[in-house]
Amino acid sequence: MTTSGGAQPRLRSTVERGDTAAVRALVAATGFFRDDEVDVAAELVAERLSRGVASGYHFVFAEIGDRMAGYSCFGPIGCTVSSHDLYWIAVHPDFQGSGVGTDLIRETERRVGELGGTRVYVETSSTARYEPTRRFYERRGYAAEGVLRDFYAPGDGKVIFVKVLPEASASP
Amino acid sequence: MTTSGGAQPRLRSTVERGDTAAVRALVAATGFFRDDEVDVAAELVAERLSRGVASGYHFVFAEIGDRMAGYSCFGPIGCTVSSHDLYWIAVHPDFQGSGVGTDLIRETERRVGELGGTRVYVETSSTARYEPTRRFYERRGYAAEGVLRDFYAPGDGKVIFVKVLPEASASP
Repeated sequence: MTTSGGAQPRLRSTVERGDTAAVRALVAATGFFRDDEVDVAAELVAERLSRGVASGYHFVFAEIGDRMAGYSCFGPIGCTVSSHDLYWIAVHPDFQGSGVGTDLIRETERRVGELGGTRVYVETSSTARYEPTRRFYERRGYAAEGVLRDFYAPGDGKVIFVKVLPEASASP
Repeated sequence: MTTSGGAQPRLRSTVERGDTAAVRALVAATGFFRDDEVDVAAELVAERLSRGVASGYHFVFAEIGDRMAGYSCFGPIGCTVSSHDLYWIAVHPDFQGSGVGTDLIRETERRVGELGGTRVYVETSSTARYEPTRRFYERRGYAAEGVLRDFYAPGDGKVIFVKVLPEASASP
């Protein structure tokens, strides 16, 4: 819905040494995640750097100027033919509402398609705090396919969203 | 529903060096799993042996005489307060229908309770081949809480079962 005020992010899928620290700083800056969750976000970048594509973790980084404005982390789900998980998507508070999230998710879906994926799954909490997150996914074509009540904690269920990618969406 | 013909399994939660090979042989003997799935089953035992409880993998082994009749693998789900996953449960063909599966799942739930768990999740396929598996869980108090269509492959969805453990079930 929103468009950038002018600063178009540069999107990058390669992973560089400094990304571990940059992702840690970005995820922490959102103020949305616990310390152990911030650790996990950074660890996935480190694992990709040490193990390469075999890690199963793929990334899209959105850069504006010399800053990391946002990123996504995704990958194929084991024991499935073509399902992928979107593990993380985060936008720095300074760039929220500027369309970076939309750019990230669009590029993520394009990359999933390149990797042979046909379905993108993303999980989030059912609590009020995550209402904007759920709306974000719904507006981008994701549908809640299941809710596991009290999954994270009493009163905090897990909502599983899925988007079936249009076939041959890559080429017009 | 069925009772053992007499051979009562010995249930054990400690993990021993020989269990990696024994689990591999057992899972392969069921004829139910692909080679890569058999590898994963064995790897989880190896990871528990090398990393201990920090691996997040717990086991119950059912032994009859000097044979491993069946086993389960389970553990706490990260970022949840008290949800646990039942990753694997398998019974050797020679002992199927003798109540070993029921013994294993009962002991698994008791152990989850000891670990502070309150909910046990288990996932399986929606295909006809897994009908007996789904019936097994349903008869033991598991309810299908969600189905992700075409998750594993076209026509092969994921069914997510959950059992909420009765509180303070440990002590009478």
